[in-house]
Amino acid sequence: MKVIQIGLGPLGRKIARYISERSGIEMAGAADINPEFIGQDVGEICGTGPLGVTVKSTIMEAIESCDADCAILTTVSSLQIITPQILEVVGHGLPVVSTSEELLHPWKTEPELASRIDAAAKASNAGVLGTGINPGFLMDSLPLFLTAVCQRVDSVKVSRLQDASFRREPFQRKIGAGLALGEFEALVAEKKIRHVGLAESIHLIADSLGWELDQVEDIISPVIAESPVESNLIQVPAGGVAGVQQIGKGLVGNEEKITLVFRASIGETDPGDTIEIEGDPNIKSTIDQGVNGDIGTCAMTINAVKQVIRARPGLQTIADIPLVTHFS
Amino acid sequence: MKVIQIGLGPLGRKIARYISERSGIEMAGAADINPEFIGQDVGEICGTGPLGVTVKSTIMEAIESCDADCAILTTVSSLQIITPQILEVVGHGLPVVSTSEELLHPWKTEPELASRIDAAAKASNAGVLGTGINPGFLMDSLPLFLTAVCQRVDSVKVSRLQDASFRREPFQRKIGAGLALGEFEALVAEKKIRHVGLAESIHLIADSLGWELDQVEDIISPVIAESPVESNLIQVPAGGVAGVQQIGKGLVGNEEKITLVFRASIGETDPGDTIEIEGDPNIKSTIDQGVNGDIGTCAMTINAVKQVIRARPGLQTIADIPLVTHFS
Repeated sequence: MKVIQIGLGPLGRKIARYISERSGIEMAGAADINPEFIGQDVGEICGTGPLGVTVKSTIMEAIESCDADCAILTTVSSLQIITPQILEVVGHGLPVVSTSEELLHPWKTEPELASRIDAAAKASNAGVLGTGINPGFLMDSLPLFLTAVCQRVDSVKVSRLQDASFRREPFQRKIGAGLALGEFEALVAEKKIRHVGLAESIHLIADSLGWELDQVEDIISPVIAESPVESNLIQVPAGGVAGVQQIGKGLVGNEEKITLVFRASIGETDPGDTIEIEGDPNIKSTIDQGVNGDIGTCAMTINAVKQVIRARPGLQTIADIPLVTHFS
Repeated sequence: MKVIQIGLGPLGRKIARYISERSGIEMAGAADINPEFIGQDVGEICGTGPLGVTVKSTIMEAIESCDADCAILTTVSSLQIITPQILEVVGHGLPVVSTSEELLHPWKTEPELASRIDAAAKASNAGVLGTGINPGFLMDSLPLFLTAVCQRVDSVKVSRLQDASFRREPFQRKIGAGLALGEFEALVAEKKIRHVGLAESIHLIADSLGWELDQVEDIISPVIAESPVESNLIQVPAGGVAGVQQIGKGLVGNEEKITLVFRASIGETDPGDTIEIEGDPNIKSTIDQGVNGDIGTCAMTINAVKQVIRARPGLQTIADIPLVTHFS
């Protein structure tokens, strides 16, 4: 499988590096708007050594430079901004896998954009998928798959508690670690501190299970350090902000049917990914220490390429396509 | 969705009962060869009260008695014996979901039968799937889905340790609980004590990950009670057989790439379903207490109907179809 990598930020560069280490998939083209990258070999930018693929400045140039089977799009989270990019790629008949969190399940949050992408993808006979580890796996499709062995599901609760010390620097900054409380609150108000995707995960779960939600909530609060904590990059004094906690809820009437607890902080003492399904039977599943998000998002994106190429045309969700697995 | 239930043994009756409790799916027809069942209302046999569906003596009669979307086939494990039944159902253009363990992934174990089923299903534009909780979920598709967030997979190990005290009577008998060692060994030699499906799970995992196995092993041994244990039905003295342990291995050269440990015994002290993936990242996932197999198999079968109806024609595996989830 030959892919075009569009967007060479930290995520795109890691994906390019990962693809260079894999068999069964290879990089055929690349594009980014960063003037320092344009014209360079993508491998030089990613630290792999030359890969024989030159970074182009536009999506069109990258597509015309090679004969690819799929494009990986890691430019922005915002569906509004990424939609024209998706339309351009599928306009050339190429399937798309994107890490845009808002693309996971935009049917409820951005129905008009979802319909436009779906129509364009169908017209070009190409599949489009938004995925990653979260949203895309740990807090939506994995709990959904666990319900496959349930005769009844009353509620789904997922918690992802991460020690951010082991994540890349932009992630540590993004969760507000090291800030004073006032600074944190100002950035939350500006929407600069938030995990994007809880609402999309909730809608994907509800739609798949056949639940009509009356309300979706998404509440952000700081994690305050009780005693001083530090990572390789950031020191947090007692009383300072160690990270963020975000709770998403999907309600039917007053009943909390879906609860997603996302917490990422420096010094988190009990990291892990836990899924609790109440129903028949009850299921409690735990991933010890949780899955590293940086590795997981890049791997999930690459592994999804195989299934998106085989998928039906149109805007798909991770629950619509055949099981994504590692491949070699 | 309207389904025909073919086979009204303990599993088929439980599935029929479960369907009667669900929305979005209903029983439209039923067949069994048991003379005591033929002509009865399927609900009377299953203990639900009348469902308005009469048990027919043949598959053809059941199919002709209603307008169904799919058939659920819970007659036998043996692919050799179930193949003509599958061919008859798909011959009428109906998709099939079956709990036949050997149907999970018969491409390596029974390639000729697999090809015949696949060709017939494609000719009739119907999907065919073998599934259940094990094989079908806990020891194959669930670990496979966990590899979706892996950049590299070196090995997959799954263990399912069950306290058989909580399972239905035929299951407790099937694992040899309460037997003397000599009796157990004689029944193993006659293939009357064995969990069917480990080899199929191993082949499904290997195929999905792109591994070419050199050897598949399947080793059965007794679980000996160290002290007396008992269930509601069976008493096991110290030194007696409390159940069975079966270990499946998939090897590439001398390297154990896939290890499946299935243990079911009365008085199992550490029940649970554990998946360990070695790779990048390592993943260890545990389902506390494990999932009840009787509930899980029936639920998985019903939940799969929705996706098999949407699936591509032909013999599918659980990794080929869209994500199976509960639905309502």
